[in-house]
Amino acid sequence: MLLMLYLIAITAEAMTGALSAGRRGMDWFGVVLIACITALGGGSVRDVLLGHYPLTWVKHPEYLILTSIAALVTIFIAPLMRHLRSLFLVLDALGLVAFTLIGCMTALDMGLSMTVAAVSGVITGVFGGILRDIFCNDIPLIFRRELYASVSFAAAWCFLLCQYAGLPVEQGTLITLFGGLLLRLLAIRFRWEMPKFVYKDGH
Amino acid sequence: MLLMLYLIAITAEAMTGALSAGRRGMDWFGVVLIACITALGGGSVRDVLLGHYPLTWVKHPEYLILTSIAALVTIFIAPLMRHLRSLFLVLDALGLVAFTLIGCMTALDMGLSMTVAAVSGVITGVFGGILRDIFCNDIPLIFRRELYASVSFAAAWCFLLCQYAGLPVEQGTLITLFGGLLLRLLAIRFRWEMPKFVYKDGH
Amino acid sequence: MLLMLYLIAITAEAMTGALSAGRRGMDWFGVVLIACITALGGGSVRDVLLGHYPLTWVKHPEYLILTSIAALVTIFIAPLMRHLRSLFLVLDALGLVAFTLIGCMTALDMGLSMTVAAVSGVITGVFGGILRDIFCNDIPLIFRRELYASVSFAAAWCFLLCQYAGLPVEQGTLITLFGGLLLRLLAIRFRWEMPKFVYKDGH
Repeated sequence: MLLMLYLIAITAEAMTGALSAGRRGMDWFGVVLIACITALGGGSVRDVLLGHYPLTWVKHPEYLILTSIAALVTIFIAPLMRHLRSLFLVLDALGLVAFTLIGCMTALDMGLSMTVAAVSGVITGVFGGILRDIFCNDIPLIFRRELYASVSFAAAWCFLLCQYAGLPVEQGTLITLFGGLLLRLLAIRFRWEMPKFVYKDGH
Repeated sequence: MLLMLYLIAITAEAMTGALSAGRRGMDWFGVVLIACITALGGGSVRDVLLGHYPLTWVKHPEYLILTSIAALVTIFIAPLMRHLRSLFLVLDALGLVAFTLIGCMTALDMGLSMTVAAVSGVITGVFGGILRDIFCNDIPLIFRRELYASVSFAAAWCFLLCQYAGLPVEQGTLITLFGGLLLRLLAIRFRWEMPKFVYKDGH
Repeated sequence: MLLMLYLIAITAEAMTGALSAGRRGMDWFGVVLIACITALGGGSVRDVLLGHYPLTWVKHPEYLILTSIAALVTIFIAPLMRHLRSLFLVLDALGLVAFTLIGCMTALDMGLSMTVAAVSGVITGVFGGILRDIFCNDIPLIFRRELYASVSFAAAWCFLLCQYAGLPVEQGTLITLFGGLLLRLLAIRFRWEMPKFVYKDGH
């Protein structure tokens, strides 16, 4: 089931990446690259930081092909995207939580501590989007809109506490998925935001 | 011969990196750093993603010294650069194809699949320039002008198909070098571009 | 003593990172992330490039907690920061030299050459700040103001020459710390800058 979610998640993330590249007027090659980075970048950053080789897409090059196709399809159905916005928000929220879960599990499988597992979950969840924004020369969006990284953080700890409490992995996964999805959708609906830190100095 | 090409390529790439840094008015240290990143960044990203240690410049620190000297020389001969533009375009094209070939070979030597080898070639070919643009706070250029990443992609598959067809490495290398160089120079001459994806939404 | 310096350094760097995030109006989560990247990013880039696993913060997750707390404290005491500017400049200079020393030692412990050790020192010293500026979508500052990367470079070679001359590690460390700190503070006081390379072309 998590694999299924993962495939949906990388497809949805690839499509958001392709739209970002389109906003910058990139060529098709750039669109495919940004899509792959958005979908697979979070997991790659995690694996490189943890020294967890080979990376997912090196082991499963078919994921690269899937995200590339998703990017090319996006180019053609872009005019329809406007009408699918709500669907996308749900898929993106699912992806965020699924990536976070996979990041936590990867770190736990490597025998790392819970703090590192939480960080690994958040990195997997949010770094694809951060890299997308850096490559498109934007300030990363995730720190400026409704709860997003915080949902990843909450989901990571929810799963880790379920594990710590001795629940079976399947139950922890389900609880985290529903809780995380709910939190993200409520945050979008009611525009919940983290408090912002605004600092001005004489520079 | 490939080593010779590689040395020419990193020198040429270091010089384009130094000019980019100069456009931003960086100090000499920044110029050297951007030059090294442009010349050696593509191979470093590839090696980190594939877990291929030690990195080229760790094993051969003399390459770092070569690119640093190339950067410092560029500062002094910058006024001449205008007259060498065509030479540079040829050297840069040679470098693109040589980097791509080396990236493919590295992945094949590690026993990775052809899809991953092609990706490895493209990463080696184009990531130096992408990192240069990110460090200089530009939108990566390569997705906005004549065929560049696509030449790397085509060269990678040309070499891989030659290998697949059982040609000796030398022949595949030569065919790819000439084909890739020709494609890139034709693309510059006739301003061939990839189609662009332009997406506007209500954001 | 170096550990003590390291802890002071990551705390000071985390606080400068938090202030940068605040200048961009990021939310609290972004502030913590930028703080961690600024404090621990230089060492992480070094470890990933050298293949030196596990990374510092994976082995010592308490450093992550320290930098996160430093970031949150910064949010609350930000109005006081203006009055502490000189203190911060000294702490930041100390951090720069301490990071550089640690980077050199790490590379020497891995049996790498002196050139690579110097590069490792400079990467550890300055990449946290470079990553901070890239994530905040600025042109890296370090190449545009008083000697900074150059201090790291000089400190690296000072330490390496002390080692080469056969001095005990403690003496080399102390000489480098005092020399580096002095050089940085003099550079700030007298606005010493590296010469800049300004290049304009027809683009």
